[in-house]
Amino acid sequence: MTVDLNSDLGEGFGAYRLGDDAAMLDVVTSANIACGFHAGDPSIMRRTCALAVERGVRIGAHIGYRDLPGFGRRAMAVVPDELRDETLYQIGSLDAFARAAGDRVRYVKPHGALYHAAAADPALATAIVTAMREFDAALALLGPAGTALESAALAAGTPFHGEGFADRAYTPAGLLAPRGLPGAVLAPDEAVAQALSIARDGKAVTIEDGTVAVAAASICVHGDSRAAVEMARRIRAALDEAAIPVRPFV
Amino acid sequence: MTVDLNSDLGEGFGAYRLGDDAAMLDVVTSANIACGFHAGDPSIMRRTCALAVERGVRIGAHIGYRDLPGFGRRAMAVVPDELRDETLYQIGSLDAFARAAGDRVRYVKPHGALYHAAAADPALATAIVTAMREFDAALALLGPAGTALESAALAAGTPFHGEGFADRAYTPAGLLAPRGLPGAVLAPDEAVAQALSIARDGKAVTIEDGTVAVAAASICVHGDSRAAVEMARRIRAALDEAAIPVRPFV
Amino acid sequence: MTVDLNSDLGEGFGAYRLGDDAAMLDVVTSANIACGFHAGDPSIMRRTCALAVERGVRIGAHIGYRDLPGFGRRAMAVVPDELRDETLYQIGSLDAFARAAGDRVRYVKPHGALYHAAAADPALATAIVTAMREFDAALALLGPAGTALESAALAAGTPFHGEGFADRAYTPAGLLAPRGLPGAVLAPDEAVAQALSIARDGKAVTIEDGTVAVAAASICVHGDSRAAVEMARRIRAALDEAAIPVRPFV
Amino acid sequence: MTVDLNSDLGEGFGAYRLGDDAAMLDVVTSANIACGFHAGDPSIMRRTCALAVERGVRIGAHIGYRDLPGFGRRAMAVVPDELRDETLYQIGSLDAFARAAGDRVRYVKPHGALYHAAAADPALATAIVTAMREFDAALALLGPAGTALESAALAAGTPFHGEGFADRAYTPAGLLAPRGLPGAVLAPDEAVAQALSIARDGKAVTIEDGTVAVAAASICVHGDSRAAVEMARRIRAALDEAAIPVRPFV
Repeated sequence: MTVDLNSDLGEGFGAYRLGDDAAMLDVVTSANIACGFHAGDPSIMRRTCALAVERGVRIGAHIGYRDLPGFGRRAMAVVPDELRDETLYQIGSLDAFARAAGDRVRYVKPHGALYHAAAADPALATAIVTAMREFDAALALLGPAGTALESAALAAGTPFHGEGFADRAYTPAGLLAPRGLPGAVLAPDEAVAQALSIARDGKAVTIEDGTVAVAAASICVHGDSRAAVEMARRIRAALDEAAIPVRPFV
Repeated sequence: MTVDLNSDLGEGFGAYRLGDDAAMLDVVTSANIACGFHAGDPSIMRRTCALAVERGVRIGAHIGYRDLPGFGRRAMAVVPDELRDETLYQIGSLDAFARAAGDRVRYVKPHGALYHAAAADPALATAIVTAMREFDAALALLGPAGTALESAALAAGTPFHGEGFADRAYTPAGLLAPRGLPGAVLAPDEAVAQALSIARDGKAVTIEDGTVAVAAASICVHGDSRAAVEMARRIRAALDEAAIPVRPFV
Repeated sequence: MTVDLNSDLGEGFGAYRLGDDAAMLDVVTSANIACGFHAGDPSIMRRTCALAVERGVRIGAHIGYRDLPGFGRRAMAVVPDELRDETLYQIGSLDAFARAAGDRVRYVKPHGALYHAAAADPALATAIVTAMREFDAALALLGPAGTALESAALAAGTPFHGEGFADRAYTPAGLLAPRGLPGAVLAPDEAVAQALSIARDGKAVTIEDGTVAVAAASICVHGDSRAAVEMARRIRAALDEAAIPVRPFV
Repeated sequence: MTVDLNSDLGEGFGAYRLGDDAAMLDVVTSANIACGFHAGDPSIMRRTCALAVERGVRIGAHIGYRDLPGFGRRAMAVVPDELRDETLYQIGSLDAFARAAGDRVRYVKPHGALYHAAAADPALATAIVTAMREFDAALALLGPAGTALESAALAAGTPFHGEGFADRAYTPAGLLAPRGLPGAVLAPDEAVAQALSIARDGKAVTIEDGTVAVAAASICVHGDSRAAVEMARRIRAALDEAAIPVRPFV
């Protein structure tokens, strides 16, 4: 029994900084690094890749919509062929920095609105997987289990790894409860407990105060505020204390 | 004795088209393909790479300043470290499409204002060569001979190939005469003659009506208008008729 | 009985050109000018405004999603407050050029995916009208009659003018038939006839070979190809011949 | 004897924040608001204009190069006609938000690399002033006295106001000493003293430990860090204590 911790990193842009990448890279084992479409730029990509490789953290391409003003959080009607091409472009650009740092891109995770769109739409999920396989058939896909992303990966023979969220409640069907719902966002203590529960028992809490099975090889933690970094550290410490090895899923 | 013909291709963007890529790919042996910074986008990159590979045309990364509104034609004070990172990003993204099409990026050529800046500034030239070597030490550099670009390549052990211009007069020192000068742009017949003269004798005309040595493994031709495509075809036909093999320099 | 002809103009960007603006400005009486979000840039805006004012053509702000790579044709989940702000920004920037040319922005027309989104969604339509009124309560809205755009304008007291399409068939309910449907795009002769029929009788053909009432103070014509410009000229000539005055709706 | 305090505000972009605008708007009397070219976006422009008008702070258009990745800090070879058009675009867009908030753009200040380029190049300075006058002949120009910006304004009849820097030493010729030089950046106590000295005596310190005349109707203060905001507050307090009225220059 092991678990991976992943986080969205390299999300600055030009003069702008977002989150404490160096701090988070001491906590996580997989880094979802922005590729310049929703965030990130070439110099930030180089820096983040170098920091990740120094610590043995795996590099994943955090692909997003081409929407810097919206940070990739706005759904966009990108057709599958275009998404396939934008995915290949982003993987290729990040891989150049990963290799310059001594490793390579090991996996792909969609970001923001694309995460949700591709989880729901088989054509979009397939477009992502197609681009991944064009680049390197060994690339793994990280995303929500039981969705179109998992199906598209399995159909193509691409390794798929599910991710869970420490600080979020789930629906009884095992999907992430929308942020707006009462009880959807867990308090810090609950989040630490849920990380342990996902890692050890594959179970998360539901907004109806029950539990539900969540298949997660990796737990997503955030680093966009001091409180978030602190919570990520507590989760890591709790896993260490419980003697659950925290290791990359790839 | 052989010569290469190269052209700037894949320069459309989104709904915009520029030049007749398919026509030019029947004429040239090396394609300088835009990587999305001064022109181009993922879908155009895929299409242009596929058309090039079908015809055995070599793929080069046409790297430029990140300036879509200015088409990379405006000088920008990008510092060497940033240029190195922007170069690596562009090479990596194009290589993904080149590989999807069955080949890979074989060389790099700077575009527009970057071409002139890097020819004149050793620090910028070195930044480009550094990124090229980080990606693949076998990548060749295509540019003006006798400049900082050639020096930086030689110093690093990177293969360098000079290029000449069929339709432009040179200074007595062997540099391209600025467009604004009288006689700097040659008429079509003169351009065809100069292409032959560069390929056969390594000589070009000067704005002072003399000739000057131009070391060029490749001749740059344009495809951004019907007249330009027609001139490129005439140059290719004249080389074929003179039994000068037109072959990729890499 | 008079009718206006409008066209989407100033849709180039940087080095890219799209359509023949000067030719179309000799045909139409209202110019929907791109404001830099989906197309256009400051210099193109200046030039197009100047050409319009010289010919007495009215200037409208052709507002779009901030999506140059997609030319504003991809639906984007922009929330109403953000759309209101993006609308106000675009109107303000174009008005500066309209005033430099001696006139001002007289109306607003949404472009591409925003046209369809705002016609269907009252919150988006209201966001556009709110920004228009913040700028100048006299600004008119041009768009499809009988939609959320018309309702939002009427509710706010903003002048609304419906537009019809010469080259498109309608549904029996009076809405534009989607391009994909058989018979949705009319042949040139049919388009000329439909322009006359809309102007004279307020009637357009349906994809079921009937006719339907279309309330249109303005007819939209295109200029993005030679054939399109030619059709626009034929429509104008037919209206002139039928002695239907072609005049701006504002 | 009065003095104005100005600061660069509204410099966030999308999900990114930079500086504490609300805090600085309690300190300054003039707000240089980014217009979306080097920083800022429509919603940030609206918010910043509203906050400024609430406090009686004057709104200035902080015009910059169209270079979000470089934050407008990289020199760009933009030709004068293009700069004139980009200036008019930016003023027009910001004025729409200023008017929505109940005021209007009162002045223009160039940002970053454009500030230095236009101070040195009469053609660029004239391009800015030309656009300002096209928009509104009453607009004032804020910038370094004794430069091409002042000359261009005076030649056109545009009101010009010089600005000084509290935290920077000057050359004996009265120009800002480059940041890289030893002693070019003043310590907090020195900066407070210099603000008083500029306001009261029109004198600043030089890097050679002397003093030099600096004609400044306004003093520029920064808000991009907690320390910067604190220093701005101390400067404001010192001016208040010295009974030097802090008032807008327009």
